[in-house]
Amino acid sequence: MEATAQEVDAAVRAADQARGALTDRAVRAAFLRTAAERLEAAKDQLVEAADAETALGPVRLTGELARTCYQLRAFADIVDEGAFLDVVINHPDDTATPPIPDLRRYKVPLGVVAVYSASNFPFAFSVAGGDTASALAAGCPVVVKAHPDHPALSELVAKVLRTAAKAHGVPAGVVGLVHGFEAGIALIEHPLVSAAGFTGSVRGGRALFDAAAARPVPIPFHGELGSLNPVLITEAAAAERAEAIGAGLAGSMTLGVGQFCVKPGLVLAPAGASGDRLVKSLTDAVSDTDPGVLLDHRMRDNFLAGVAERAELPEVDSPVTPGAGGEHTVSAGFLTVPAGKLAQEGTYDLLLEECFGPVTVVARYEDEAEAKAVLSRLPGNLTATVHLSTEEAAGQGRGPELLAELTPLAGRVLVNGWPTGVAVAPAQHHGGPYPATTSTSTSVGGTAIERWLRPVVYQGAPEALLPPELRDDNPLGLPRRFNGRLER
Amino acid sequence: MEATAQEVDAAVRAADQARGALTDRAVRAAFLRTAAERLEAAKDQLVEAADAETALGPVRLTGELARTCYQLRAFADIVDEGAFLDVVINHPDDTATPPIPDLRRYKVPLGVVAVYSASNFPFAFSVAGGDTASALAAGCPVVVKAHPDHPALSELVAKVLRTAAKAHGVPAGVVGLVHGFEAGIALIEHPLVSAAGFTGSVRGGRALFDAAAARPVPIPFHGELGSLNPVLITEAAAAERAEAIGAGLAGSMTLGVGQFCVKPGLVLAPAGASGDRLVKSLTDAVSDTDPGVLLDHRMRDNFLAGVAERAELPEVDSPVTPGAGGEHTVSAGFLTVPAGKLAQEGTYDLLLEECFGPVTVVARYEDEAEAKAVLSRLPGNLTATVHLSTEEAAGQGRGPELLAELTPLAGRVLVNGWPTGVAVAPAQHHGGPYPATTSTSTSVGGTAIERWLRPVVYQGAPEALLPPELRDDNPLGLPRRFNGRLER
Repeated sequence: MEATAQEVDAAVRAADQARGALTDRAVRAAFLRTAAERLEAAKDQLVEAADAETALGPVRLTGELARTCYQLRAFADIVDEGAFLDVVINHPDDTATPPIPDLRRYKVPLGVVAVYSASNFPFAFSVAGGDTASALAAGCPVVVKAHPDHPALSELVAKVLRTAAKAHGVPAGVVGLVHGFEAGIALIEHPLVSAAGFTGSVRGGRALFDAAAARPVPIPFHGELGSLNPVLITEAAAAERAEAIGAGLAGSMTLGVGQFCVKPGLVLAPAGASGDRLVKSLTDAVSDTDPGVLLDHRMRDNFLAGVAERAELPEVDSPVTPGAGGEHTVSAGFLTVPAGKLAQEGTYDLLLEECFGPVTVVARYEDEAEAKAVLSRLPGNLTATVHLSTEEAAGQGRGPELLAELTPLAGRVLVNGWPTGVAVAPAQHHGGPYPATTSTSTSVGGTAIERWLRPVVYQGAPEALLPPELRDDNPLGLPRRFNGRLER
Repeated sequence: MEATAQEVDAAVRAADQARGALTDRAVRAAFLRTAAERLEAAKDQLVEAADAETALGPVRLTGELARTCYQLRAFADIVDEGAFLDVVINHPDDTATPPIPDLRRYKVPLGVVAVYSASNFPFAFSVAGGDTASALAAGCPVVVKAHPDHPALSELVAKVLRTAAKAHGVPAGVVGLVHGFEAGIALIEHPLVSAAGFTGSVRGGRALFDAAAARPVPIPFHGELGSLNPVLITEAAAAERAEAIGAGLAGSMTLGVGQFCVKPGLVLAPAGASGDRLVKSLTDAVSDTDPGVLLDHRMRDNFLAGVAERAELPEVDSPVTPGAGGEHTVSAGFLTVPAGKLAQEGTYDLLLEECFGPVTVVARYEDEAEAKAVLSRLPGNLTATVHLSTEEAAGQGRGPELLAELTPLAGRVLVNGWPTGVAVAPAQHHGGPYPATTSTSTSVGGTAIERWLRPVVYQGAPEALLPPELRDDNPLGLPRRFNGRLER
């Protein structure tokens, strides 16, 4: 089933041939909406196929499919509105230095986009996921590299998308699908591939990023690789509601059996009595959590090995030790460590690396300086969270300061919440300093479309030659910047 | 004078320390305006220093300084308006799938930016040029790697910028300056450098791009490397005004002694009588052009060698042969070749490479298909130009089709104009497919600021903790997207 280099080439060429059919924005929007409809219509079959290949279960899978369809429709709305075209028009202005000629700028699609599917989201970050939806919305055909954990589902979803495409006169090649590790490499190196989206591990993502950068013609590589997602609990917050925070943390770190890229993986909790209450609450809640099934054997082996390696460190305790059940099943757990051990480079650095699965590390800090020292050592993250007391959240004490301290760490900063659950929204940003993502872009939310576009400006082009998007009378009613003024 | 690794480190650390002082947008805008004022006040001294180190002459240098100051003020206006912050606010929405929490997104500065100066623009693309202006506007301190062609001028300009900074309480370290090839490498590799801007050769730019991508933490590298800037003259346009086009081309290709990155380097002209008239007109105009002085010996040697190598190709003619004068002086010229020679890979590919200096290649095409075949072989460009007849420009014949065909080639597409002269304007886009630029961004125009920012979203943060930019009541009057609606 692995695609040969010739098959990859054929898929990319077919996708490239479909570019013209995506030129019309109305066609793109209709295609995306039909895709959502047909995926919904095929729900039973799709969830069954996903359930057969993954251990995620029908409830989660049904929800994920709904999210995927919502996302496709959200991008259809974005295509209709057209703000993403970033239209800027300047009439000639001789008072500028140098003088400004007639300039009309908007954004055009980059070309074929390579999409690398994630293991842990067979719908929302795979064949019909956010990368594909945003690329098609931008006018870019895609060739998806299927994840080996759900090849049959990938074929099914691709078939649904192609049927939706054909319903609007778009060639089936607009959504290519290839399988296999070598095919993934051939894809990133193909001269007709213009950009790539990736969700997965630091190792795999970095290898593809490097390949994208090493091409004779380098291309943008938007990869989401890994994240520790630190959480800081202030002394006052712990004093106020240690039990609720402990229970909330247990829920977030075990959600989806800890297989979310935004799982809280490092928690800074105070060392004293309030922190003890928090750890007690976390212990109770995690102990009460049912064992869960990990995606596959590899994931389970890595999880158990990762936990064991961490638990062996001298001053690490395991109030609840994660354990192995039958098949791919594991039980959740967590580790504790004095935060001071993490404040300086050393063997404890392992605790600052992501460990995929239902485990987190609670680092107990003696004072604010120690917590800050640990935060300053973290690599980039998708999220950073702070739990504040009612008074701190109202702006008293160090609330505003803490928010500012967390901002450099991540692309999403949460107050009194949990990072799991990534809303599909115009304001969403799912990305962060490396290795969270390899670019400053997002893979979730409305602005994800920006990744697949490049600006072009027309100078001195008569109205008769201009696309309607760039004409003075704005026949399409686009939001734009016209002679300096923002028009909406 | 070359900076040691320790000196580079000190410059980067000083710049990093200045980040906080740039947080206030009002301070940034005032700093940029004061910088413009002080550069203007020092005009005589600066132009004299630039004239002593380059062969560009006081007229060009005075104009370039004016452009530089205009650019600094344009970015100050952009900072004041705040649209670049891209504020998007979503109130909670339980009807979404999954539900949307309170999300408030805007953009924050990336951190210290490394700026690599260009040889051919000692003001506008050097210490106080577009990269520096846009980075400071974004809130990012800079460390500039001076170009070896104008080290003393670089020091002077940096001093003026630092004085302007200090006038607004910003530490002098906000504009660092280092000299030397090794320093340039150390700069791109420094852990505290967050992004880089570059204007220069494909070779140098690619080496730095590769170094930026190979870092443990890769950083965005916005490089402008090289461009052929193709021009297509239709048969009808040549028939209508061959003489005007020939004269216009001569003016554009010899402007600044051919040392602009947007110099038209390949011209597709029809093979028949109209094309002959065009070549005749070009011959006359180029022959009448005074010899000019190139930037330095290296530039002159490369130019003469490049021309000689091209002129030796079997079917290449030199109606006007570029020649060597005294010192750095050269005279302009151009080559002709049958376009068919360029339609396929082979020895004539050399003609598809940029040759810096006052020379262009006129490829005579037999028919539209041949012209199209040549265009399809071109690497990415900053600009692509088409000259149309009055009727074609009015939308008759192949006008719209030609515009669409040129769009994939470049970031700026001109009709009946010449690419030299890059206006500083909100709609400007100075960039294009690789190797024109290494990213989809622009180095000239309002959107150049986008290169130095990354989005961050706050989830569930109480108003009391939010920066004013993200509060519901919009105290700063920023353009934004509020619950889906664009507010301006």
